[in-house]
Amino acid sequence: MRVKFHQNLDGLKERLLVMAGLAEQAIQRATEAYRTRDFSLADLVFQSEPAINRMEREIDELAYELLATEQPMAIDLRFILAVIRINADVERVGDQAVNIAARAVEMGAHANPDLPVDIPKLASLAQAMVRKSLQSFIEADAEMARSVLTMDDEVDAMNKAAYGALTEIITRQPELTPQALNVLIIARNLERVGDHATNIAEDVIFWVQGSDVRHSSMD
Amino acid sequence: MRVKFHQNLDGLKERLLVMAGLAEQAIQRATEAYRTRDFSLADLVFQSEPAINRMEREIDELAYELLATEQPMAIDLRFILAVIRINADVERVGDQAVNIAARAVEMGAHANPDLPVDIPKLASLAQAMVRKSLQSFIEADAEMARSVLTMDDEVDAMNKAAYGALTEIITRQPELTPQALNVLIIARNLERVGDHATNIAEDVIFWVQGSDVRHSSMD
Repeated sequence: MRVKFHQNLDGLKERLLVMAGLAEQAIQRATEAYRTRDFSLADLVFQSEPAINRMEREIDELAYELLATEQPMAIDLRFILAVIRINADVERVGDQAVNIAARAVEMGAHANPDLPVDIPKLASLAQAMVRKSLQSFIEADAEMARSVLTMDDEVDAMNKAAYGALTEIITRQPELTPQALNVLIIARNLERVGDHATNIAEDVIFWVQGSDVRHSSMD
Repeated sequence: MRVKFHQNLDGLKERLLVMAGLAEQAIQRATEAYRTRDFSLADLVFQSEPAINRMEREIDELAYELLATEQPMAIDLRFILAVIRINADVERVGDQAVNIAARAVEMGAHANPDLPVDIPKLASLAQAMVRKSLQSFIEADAEMARSVLTMDDEVDAMNKAAYGALTEIITRQPELTPQALNVLIIARNLERVGDHATNIAEDVIFWVQGSDVRHSSMD
């Protein structure tokens, strides 16, 4: 009975990681669609969304079944609750990828100006956060999860700088407004990806250590 | 024992509604701070954030305790899971209020141009969605929850129209860029409030009917 239960927990983890892989890939492709203007990549992002959504439902159902049929205690219970939360964040990473891909396609309708915002760099930082948060989940490593929380400051700072630079560009060269706005929104989407990675890292810490670290720096 | 358990469930619901009340009030005040330029209202929003965050943690801990010490089944289990999810969405409504209040304060540093976006109307729609989703939670009314899902389309359409109108304004009157960008971001924040209300409504339907309605219209 307990062997079966732990196999089910492993199955839950495995599915979540497959889904997370899809979401990571979607961010990667959306950013590439922006960088290279190869919109077949954006199409791939749009096509992957239903699969990610379906997996989110399946994982939630499986987690619910496990809670309903077993009586998980302590760390197993925290694990399942962490999976439910991480599941929601991974799905939202997928949503951000769709938003970014849609902006990239819209930008294709305009000229390609040289804007002072390094989206690929911001994207690679946000992706590194997602990857590290998932790695900490795979390895049940709270220390690694904590390192994700500090990376978020850098992403926030880059996003803030992008906002300032783009405001200035728009004011000086209003003809660049549509493109600059799209870049501004892509930067915000990437910042939100970083926020989701932060949430995932906090859930890993909650699972492994049983402590709730949310908002601990703010209060 | 079961009496005590159901009292605890009621206690959970009550706390969540108190917290939701704070978040609703924060959105109300942030929008008023924008409309009236009375920044003492924005201060109240900033001050309420730690309380909302603290309540989020307390509610999660209580929900976790109930799952750990009782073995809730079926509708009770779904209720607790719904509370955990709604809790996260309510906290994020509070975050949106903080973002809006911060933008309102920043706008105070510039002249007050007449921009073609009716933020108070968008805000009142988003707030109506939050109120109705919470009402459906109070009354365990899946039908009412479903009506929230259709309201979201209107909010999305208003946000999209705002984006178009503001892009045009910025292109024609670049000197209005900082103000127009702030309004654009406030509109997006309000659209996200609508998204959170949608999530809450879906959680109510999951709790009451045991069906997962997420993404049902998309797949």
